[in-house]
Amino acid sequence: MSEQENTPANEAQLSQLRNEIDRIDNEICQLISERARCAQSVADVKKAALEAAGSTDPVVYYRPEREANVLRKAMSMNNGPLDDEEMARLFREIMSACLALEEPTKVAYLGPEGTFTQQAALKHFGHSAVAMPFSAIDEVFREVEAGAVNYGVVPVENSTEGVVNHTLDNFMGSNLQICGEVELRIHQHLLVSDVTKTDSITRIYSHSQSLAQCRKWLDAHYPNAERVAVSSNADAAKRLKGEWNAAAIAGQMAADLYDLKVHAEKIEDQPDNSTRFLIIGTQKVLASGKDKTSVVVAMRNEPGALHDLLQPFHVYGIDLTRVETRPAASGTWNYVFFIDFSGHIEDAIVKKALDEVGAKAADLRVLGSYPEAVL
Amino acid sequence: MSEQENTPANEAQLSQLRNEIDRIDNEICQLISERARCAQSVADVKKAALEAAGSTDPVVYYRPEREANVLRKAMSMNNGPLDDEEMARLFREIMSACLALEEPTKVAYLGPEGTFTQQAALKHFGHSAVAMPFSAIDEVFREVEAGAVNYGVVPVENSTEGVVNHTLDNFMGSNLQICGEVELRIHQHLLVSDVTKTDSITRIYSHSQSLAQCRKWLDAHYPNAERVAVSSNADAAKRLKGEWNAAAIAGQMAADLYDLKVHAEKIEDQPDNSTRFLIIGTQKVLASGKDKTSVVVAMRNEPGALHDLLQPFHVYGIDLTRVETRPAASGTWNYVFFIDFSGHIEDAIVKKALDEVGAKAADLRVLGSYPEAVL
Repeated sequence: MSEQENTPANEAQLSQLRNEIDRIDNEICQLISERARCAQSVADVKKAALEAAGSTDPVVYYRPEREANVLRKAMSMNNGPLDDEEMARLFREIMSACLALEEPTKVAYLGPEGTFTQQAALKHFGHSAVAMPFSAIDEVFREVEAGAVNYGVVPVENSTEGVVNHTLDNFMGSNLQICGEVELRIHQHLLVSDVTKTDSITRIYSHSQSLAQCRKWLDAHYPNAERVAVSSNADAAKRLKGEWNAAAIAGQMAADLYDLKVHAEKIEDQPDNSTRFLIIGTQKVLASGKDKTSVVVAMRNEPGALHDLLQPFHVYGIDLTRVETRPAASGTWNYVFFIDFSGHIEDAIVKKALDEVGAKAADLRVLGSYPEAVL
Repeated sequence: MSEQENTPANEAQLSQLRNEIDRIDNEICQLISERARCAQSVADVKKAALEAAGSTDPVVYYRPEREANVLRKAMSMNNGPLDDEEMARLFREIMSACLALEEPTKVAYLGPEGTFTQQAALKHFGHSAVAMPFSAIDEVFREVEAGAVNYGVVPVENSTEGVVNHTLDNFMGSNLQICGEVELRIHQHLLVSDVTKTDSITRIYSHSQSLAQCRKWLDAHYPNAERVAVSSNADAAKRLKGEWNAAAIAGQMAADLYDLKVHAEKIEDQPDNSTRFLIIGTQKVLASGKDKTSVVVAMRNEPGALHDLLQPFHVYGIDLTRVETRPAASGTWNYVFFIDFSGHIEDAIVKKALDEVGAKAADLRVLGSYPEAVL
């Protein structure tokens, strides 16, 4: 692939298009600067308001509900050709750069570097944030509590990594708020190469975690195939070129990279195989119009207790998105329930429902209302 | 830090500013879409030209020299408040998204994930590229040669990682071109905390690589301080809070994150402590106006040979940016020299100089001309 020659006519067309792009870039550049100046003015107004009120609190520049709305607007305005996720990603980066003018957002995440949690932190805060890895979930909590960072990012739902409980347990001993959530969707496919005889697959390569995530599907569809755990899904994909009787479990990226075909898609046992992360902080987030609320409820373990507890949500038509049961740390109550539902704590029906839940429960704590993951 | 109250007057100001930001966002969104459509038109013209010429070559969408110029323009147009690097970063992401519409750029880099090389790959290609880690430099070369990826990213200059030679040696057995370079600047500072008695520093924490990078400076300034290698620079920075007689070597990010003071800045022994990476591919890159060229020259080891060899560069006023000497792989020639200089292979004086160098050398191969790292 060497330099490609064009005819003069092509060259003229290309040159015209490139001038057009230069003009557009010029305008984009000016608009981004203008946006950054507006963001500075917002900061100035906030600072002046705090000073006038005689407050010495730090100014809160980052407003999750406002960012969620900017992203939602960008996605709804977008008519292509970029897809909505890409457009939102670009706006995330623009906001991240504008925000960093005032104060680079400091974020602690569960490390090490290169993990999905880092990816989640950067997806949420953009690349102008200062994100630092910590080796344990409770360290992330501690950094936020101590005020050394503005926010923390911790995984909360991932069936295979087994860290969910640890995150939930940390909330029991902490006053931190949930300020947001991030979702990374992870789909696994069965990939084959040009040389694969798909009737004769006797060996399936993947990382052990991915094999585990697709165990039931494999039991049903390839009960007799040998499952070979290798160092990464990319490594699994790479092996297919030389083996006519092998397939690999990996994501779309590996399929693209190695020119493999998707023989069966989304084979993960849990259909919604996304990893979910929470943004933790000290900030109460205003309603964005499409929010979630997380609460933790302590109860005695009596027959029908949970059913009874959830009744008000049903009555008020509030959509429960998740319920987790955990043994209580202290001996007083048998169980605590972590409940996620749609709506914001300031919504009238949410208030009513929580009043009723609170009356039934031994203890009720709101962990936070926050914008639903935008993309 | 709870929700901050504003007076009605403040609220009115904020609301006006936010409306202004929404209007700007609307325009940016439309311009980005318009730019993406232009990029699609460029692709269409290129495809049509290839078809008209009866060529079955893949269309080359990614043009390093064009991207370098877009970034340079964005930086020169920029009048703040964002700094030039941030503005260029945003344009990198916009171009990355537009390019991915045609064909997501596939990039192999020296892994694992979370390394500086990954950072370099994403800095250069933006986050819409598909970047996959490989565990060895020659694997990255092989992936590019096999056409499984469009580009590779390998480190070429980093005194402590010791991988330079391995990358250079790979070029000797390969026909790949250098299509670009990326620089990541890495500065080390001596950090102290509020409680540090700077006259009494007897212990200095850092990662072993950072301690090595600052060895001479430490020998000169803290010959008697104990040097303690810890797992990361962040870890080093974190330890300072409790120890009045300790300092840490780490970067600005750690100083920001842990509210530490820079007691001595840029203490790395090599003043230009940046890690440099090469983009390798099969593409010859056109001149961007500010380019570098890399060549490899084989010579017999005679007295004065190198001096003689470099003479033409001096005569034509060509700036040498780097010369590396490596033993030749084959027994025929004693040494090969890797030479980097300013200018593009299509420049008249570069042609003349290389003609003269070629006449003196046993062998001369141009590894590539490519845009100088933009930021």
